[in-house]
Amino acid sequence: MSKEFFFEVKVYYEDTDSGGVVYYANYLKFLERARSEMISSIGLNNTKLLNEHGVLVIVKSCNIDYKKPARLEDVLKISSKIISSTRTSFAMKQIISKQSDIISEAEVKLVCIDSKGKPVQIPNAINDLIKS
Amino acid sequence: MSKEFFFEVKVYYEDTDSGGVVYYANYLKFLERARSEMISSIGLNNTKLLNEHGVLVIVKSCNIDYKKPARLEDVLKISSKIISSTRTSFAMKQIISKQSDIISEAEVKLVCIDSKGKPVQIPNAINDLIKS
Amino acid sequence: MSKEFFFEVKVYYEDTDSGGVVYYANYLKFLERARSEMISSIGLNNTKLLNEHGVLVIVKSCNIDYKKPARLEDVLKISSKIISSTRTSFAMKQIISKQSDIISEAEVKLVCIDSKGKPVQIPNAINDLIKS
Amino acid sequence: MSKEFFFEVKVYYEDTDSGGVVYYANYLKFLERARSEMISSIGLNNTKLLNEHGVLVIVKSCNIDYKKPARLEDVLKISSKIISSTRTSFAMKQIISKQSDIISEAEVKLVCIDSKGKPVQIPNAINDLIKS
Repeated sequence: MSKEFFFEVKVYYEDTDSGGVVYYANYLKFLERARSEMISSIGLNNTKLLNEHGVLVIVKSCNIDYKKPARLEDVLKISSKIISSTRTSFAMKQIISKQSDIISEAEVKLVCIDSKGKPVQIPNAINDLIKS
Repeated sequence: MSKEFFFEVKVYYEDTDSGGVVYYANYLKFLERARSEMISSIGLNNTKLLNEHGVLVIVKSCNIDYKKPARLEDVLKISSKIISSTRTSFAMKQIISKQSDIISEAEVKLVCIDSKGKPVQIPNAINDLIKS
Repeated sequence: MSKEFFFEVKVYYEDTDSGGVVYYANYLKFLERARSEMISSIGLNNTKLLNEHGVLVIVKSCNIDYKKPARLEDVLKISSKIISSTRTSFAMKQIISKQSDIISEAEVKLVCIDSKGKPVQIPNAINDLIKS
Repeated sequence: MSKEFFFEVKVYYEDTDSGGVVYYANYLKFLERARSEMISSIGLNNTKLLNEHGVLVIVKSCNIDYKKPARLEDVLKISSKIISSTRTSFAMKQIISKQSDIISEAEVKLVCIDSKGKPVQIPNAINDLIKS
């Protein structure tokens, strides 16, 4: 299990809908930004993963619970943690909160694939992250 | 359990990402369009639900599995079915496919709320849809 | 100058913002869908243009005026017309309307490029469309 | 004419399209984030503007030139400047760049309206910003 990684996002007009709250699909954008920044925190990024390691990290499943709505100009904190892994895939728990309120909670399963879509071994750097 | 409702979407540039496939969050937009059209198919819509019934249908959870990627200009078929319900909420099974391939499968839980966010009874018209 | 091409879009939650109207950037998505469908109307599409002709049509500039707001579940009509062209580029006038109201008006300049980003001649099929 | 305001954005998967570059509509999201942050820099924000001043700042027109493509994980700098104003409206020049390359340049006209859509005087705090 990895250490928790924290990342903040601010809600802009683009994220909201006419219900006055963040549109439900847009939380998945926030989650992906947080995952990308988690990878950046170890000196990697998606571009390097693809160009230097031939690896693309794709989402296999996402299970998200919407607890409370977030609104325009809210500042949200996303906590991300790798909770399990196999040779080619790993699972993350990601929690979006606004101060002490949990806005949404997600469990996301990811798999490493090559350019042909075949599952491949998790790169060492990410494995180190998993074991941090 | 409701009858199955079918809706088609076409993949445009806006839906794709630099991985060459539909961005994972955007499938949730497709699912929402299909749910909105299912409600429209009984002569209702989200605007009427809010203005005439004081009801907003919001997503409580979404559990989506990504099976195969969809790509630019693919035409996707979405099948939507209400699989269970309580007095104030209901669950749907939604399957996105491309010809005979399943692209993704989702289970979405929805709840009816009033303008203050309090759960309220499912409007009769939607209940009729559930029992179709 | 081409014939006018008409395409309809419906406004879903994803398109709106917490101001209760369509978010200003999202009209550009509608415009791009209409341009893609215009190309589809002559049996082409962006995928074929790239794979069979080695051509990508990209936007060089977009000049959009927002006249009236569109709202959730509005059905919008987009009229698209090619108004001028050079050997490698063309300009379009696109008008988004809701019944007799003009919602927004745009002039969009597009250029044909190859995979290296170099401007290339407009494919014949599109030239035929321009002269329709 | 205002001082220049600088804001940075990072390109995530959500911003790109299958052409491998940032989708043309998404630059307008970046521009709006920068404008929101410019307003935040004087202790205001869109929520306060609406709730405390009854004012909504909406886009009347956007004229954007796309010079060079931005790509996944690029860090973009946005410079924003108010270049002219009337009693109820103002115009901004916004430039998106990547190191020394200009990615896109936009001129955006904005107008202050009340909750009924009627143009109203620019709030004093924003006027101070214009004259900074």
